[in-house]
Amino acid sequence: MTVNEKIARLRLLMKRESIDTYIVSKSDPHQSEYTQEYWNQVKYISGFTGSAATVVITMNHAGLWTDGRYYIQAEQELAGSEFIMYGCTEPNVRDYDQFAADETQVGGTIGFNGDVMSTSQARAIQNLVRFKRISLNTDIDLIGEMWKDRPELSKSLIFNHHLRFCGVPRREKLAELRCRMKAGFADFYVISSIDDIAWLFNLRGNDMAYTTCFESYAVIDNKEAVLFVDLDKAVDVKDELEQDNVILLDIKEISSFLEEYTKNSGKKVVLINPRTVSHALLCKLKSCEIVERYVDLTASMKAVKNSVELYNLEDVNQRDGVAMVRFIIWLKENAGKGINEVDAAEKVTEFRRTGKNFVEPSFSTIAAYMSNAALMHYSAVKGACSEIKPLGVLLLDSGGSYYDGTTDITRTIVLGNISDELRHDYTLVLKSHISLADATFLYGVTGTNLDTFARMHMWKHNLDYKSGTGHGLGFFLNVHEGPHRISSIINDTVFEEDMIVTNEPGVYREGKHGIRIENTMQVVNHTENAFGRFMRFRIMSYCPIDLEGIIPELLTSDEKKWLNEYHKTVREKLNPHLLPEEREWLVSATDEI
Amino acid sequence: MTVNEKIARLRLLMKRESIDTYIVSKSDPHQSEYTQEYWNQVKYISGFTGSAATVVITMNHAGLWTDGRYYIQAEQELAGSEFIMYGCTEPNVRDYDQFAADETQVGGTIGFNGDVMSTSQARAIQNLVRFKRISLNTDIDLIGEMWKDRPELSKSLIFNHHLRFCGVPRREKLAELRCRMKAGFADFYVISSIDDIAWLFNLRGNDMAYTTCFESYAVIDNKEAVLFVDLDKAVDVKDELEQDNVILLDIKEISSFLEEYTKNSGKKVVLINPRTVSHALLCKLKSCEIVERYVDLTASMKAVKNSVELYNLEDVNQRDGVAMVRFIIWLKENAGKGINEVDAAEKVTEFRRTGKNFVEPSFSTIAAYMSNAALMHYSAVKGACSEIKPLGVLLLDSGGSYYDGTTDITRTIVLGNISDELRHDYTLVLKSHISLADATFLYGVTGTNLDTFARMHMWKHNLDYKSGTGHGLGFFLNVHEGPHRISSIINDTVFEEDMIVTNEPGVYREGKHGIRIENTMQVVNHTENAFGRFMRFRIMSYCPIDLEGIIPELLTSDEKKWLNEYHKTVREKLNPHLLPEEREWLVSATDEI
Repeated sequence: MTVNEKIARLRLLMKRESIDTYIVSKSDPHQSEYTQEYWNQVKYISGFTGSAATVVITMNHAGLWTDGRYYIQAEQELAGSEFIMYGCTEPNVRDYDQFAADETQVGGTIGFNGDVMSTSQARAIQNLVRFKRISLNTDIDLIGEMWKDRPELSKSLIFNHHLRFCGVPRREKLAELRCRMKAGFADFYVISSIDDIAWLFNLRGNDMAYTTCFESYAVIDNKEAVLFVDLDKAVDVKDELEQDNVILLDIKEISSFLEEYTKNSGKKVVLINPRTVSHALLCKLKSCEIVERYVDLTASMKAVKNSVELYNLEDVNQRDGVAMVRFIIWLKENAGKGINEVDAAEKVTEFRRTGKNFVEPSFSTIAAYMSNAALMHYSAVKGACSEIKPLGVLLLDSGGSYYDGTTDITRTIVLGNISDELRHDYTLVLKSHISLADATFLYGVTGTNLDTFARMHMWKHNLDYKSGTGHGLGFFLNVHEGPHRISSIINDTVFEEDMIVTNEPGVYREGKHGIRIENTMQVVNHTENAFGRFMRFRIMSYCPIDLEGIIPELLTSDEKKWLNEYHKTVREKLNPHLLPEEREWLVSATDEI
Repeated sequence: MTVNEKIARLRLLMKRESIDTYIVSKSDPHQSEYTQEYWNQVKYISGFTGSAATVVITMNHAGLWTDGRYYIQAEQELAGSEFIMYGCTEPNVRDYDQFAADETQVGGTIGFNGDVMSTSQARAIQNLVRFKRISLNTDIDLIGEMWKDRPELSKSLIFNHHLRFCGVPRREKLAELRCRMKAGFADFYVISSIDDIAWLFNLRGNDMAYTTCFESYAVIDNKEAVLFVDLDKAVDVKDELEQDNVILLDIKEISSFLEEYTKNSGKKVVLINPRTVSHALLCKLKSCEIVERYVDLTASMKAVKNSVELYNLEDVNQRDGVAMVRFIIWLKENAGKGINEVDAAEKVTEFRRTGKNFVEPSFSTIAAYMSNAALMHYSAVKGACSEIKPLGVLLLDSGGSYYDGTTDITRTIVLGNISDELRHDYTLVLKSHISLADATFLYGVTGTNLDTFARMHMWKHNLDYKSGTGHGLGFFLNVHEGPHRISSIINDTVFEEDMIVTNEPGVYREGKHGIRIENTMQVVNHTENAFGRFMRFRIMSYCPIDLEGIIPELLTSDEKKWLNEYHKTVREKLNPHLLPEEREWLVSATDEI
């Protein structure tokens, strides 16, 4: 079927169900960052392959909403179909839900599959339509009905994440979680966020690349912990979970379980996160008193790394730094000898793979030469990527997912001649990076306060970058992890001791170059006095920052001091693991300025 | 009656009403910053005279909650009574509402006067008690019943704020407000915030010192604007309001009006701010669809000053600067000649009063010598205040309420020898002040982002100040005005062009000294390019910053440049208005460093 034929077929099904407007979400039932192809209903109906999109179909209109990363790609992939693209990061473009509310007549019906729409999303739609007496039909899956060659869900086995890696037994995590539930007056807690569940039960899976999550739900009360997964995938961990009194049920039973569970026991107080619990699941909790938290209790717990995790991360980051040093040496030697961006991306993974405990890259490596790096989410494709020449810079943003931790690091590597503008931008990025890395801050502040440390140096030169400054990282889990982040956007999570976070300001000049310098940092206590408790960052990533990009006169003496001390640490940490010639290279790459 | 006798009497009334726990709020029905003595039920029942407090009385307990500013005062004023003080800014102290919920038995009753409790406060209590099946009785006023010699409400006349001062006719303000109401789907809007109402109708009054507000409500719909005030106070403005189609009703009629208004016209959508609309008023809106905004539409409108207001403010701030210069000259000449803090506070008002259009100080002047200034809300009292000696510093935080605008400025003035520590702190405060004053920032940021510009210099030295960095100012209205502010605390109001805001970082060392340097600033457009739209601040206050406090080596060349340019502007703006000998003083006080 062509896309237009699929739209026509969908409209027939909509008519059958008396639906005026149908919304198709790209999410899985857990609002995960990475999702299996099985859930990509947007791709099925529209042909659009980007990672973020929502579709709205009416009887005479087909619209697809995506963000600035995907405008060009969406225009190309939707060409020839009835679909109109809407840029949801553009001013004066209505959101998909506003559009759906506007385009549906008074008294009409909007339909969507409540399994893959979060409680928050469904509520936003409800708020927009209530004045128009529009009904919602959320108990249907019209795309699922049409989709004949739908991909299978993963059958990858779930495995135990060993205590020597993760540090705290699941029994202890459950006990701590129950304390927090009690403080929040919750009788039971429905968790839908799959990285939280993986962390809580010390389990990992392999449903998709770049994440070790597996599809799951969990229901926790004062006595029981029930884990819902595809039971076929749980054969290896079943016994151990049973020993820890975890009840295993099939993921298909979550709805009927909740119905039964809430029916037989009076009015209970249930805790949910409306951003991750689906509208469909919420409907099963109607008889309960609902307490909502926009940050899962488990997310707050897993964001603060335990001492075993931190010990492992120190080791992992040394291994990762060795791979990065080897990569930079290789790159500087081979630029201009026919290598391209894809070669570079493969090479850095190859170096990481020689280290201990490496599983896979922690995300799709960004190896972007010069102007390609100005596209913030550039992904080099074999056959259509740039050759790396012995001039300009390569931006390499990469990381490893190791059993004993996850890394994320970016270096912009100078390969030969660079323009004055590039050198100026590089130095500014470094100033921003150092400003945050070297910050002292009062306990109680959030990433919104901290963001200014980095961004003020950009603003001073009328520059900005359209991304956050930093994000939390999972431990052998998602490379992006909340609830904390460093961003201008309001976020009320306090930076706690032993949270970890990236520091990645950048300058992106369209058609010219992109520059980013990223390390991962740990939040540490600094001092306490009559004025309060003060915190600082400890840098966890070890890899030289290319001195060839810097205009030294633009750095203050404090900034030079920071850089020299950082480079001294890099030498101390990496030298023991390097070959003599690598060590020699590192000494000159980390020379004092 | 003694305080304990009053408590006993209140408990009898509570028993009569079957109330287990009674909460007494210090608020007026509008949650105003300044309130009339008539509303000070907390003072009546407890004897405590501070500006912030809430009382909870049970059958065997009497508690008073106040914040860090008032701990010492509260302990003194409550001594000898049954009252226990709770520090609501202390860790591990339950809030008054949590305390009330905990101390009331399952199935019991909590009472309070719903007229003086905001919708948000009442809702917080409701949320805390719902699991204990506690009932609320909010339709009573037990203190009012007891209070025999209650002060009268003000009868001060309401007057017109002339268009040459305020710039925009009330008809235009109402038209703009209706546009915004329409965009928010509101059929009508109930406004309880009294400074918003004064601004909207271009009216002012004199119910209390330091504010030109008058007690009022307003109800606005697509056709009508109804203003509720004490009609006796409105005789001078009645005709003009009628000409502008404003309906005047007595303030006592607000409840019955809303009951009638909502009864006769189907299900309407009403807009309210739950932080200022009282619980009692909300109860009258039960038949409506309620849309809530935590920032009044009027507050967003009045925060952006119009061109006439800005023109007037330029003039006002020059006049205010002249008064400040005269004050500083007087102070430096008279320190050590028997003057004290109260003399200084009176003197600055005297200098302001000689200028045009001055009405009164815009708040209670803080004139605090040395260690007194470390108490952030110090107020000098005749007979018990410090003498000003020819050494150390005086902190003077003061402002004028003029018909053509409101000012707020702080200088820390060096009177003779100062310690190295004081000089270091003074220089740090100046660095913080300049960092914010000289900031370039992306359009879209909030005061939470901006706060870091000032505070980072403090944090670097393990210092902090327990106050915000800046607040908005009313125009011949409250000196503190939202919705924007500069503070570490999360605030999501974007800084718009032509908002005005103070910049007032400080260092407060208990027992030693307090230092603050404050100017008022206007948000202005700076430039726009591919990276975004950038904003800066224009300084509106003109008064030298005391060079004698500075350690010049601690300032960067950019900071020195900023200070020299600011001082050049001060000379240019003030010189034309000064006497020759004052001009001479100013030249040396603003010498280049």
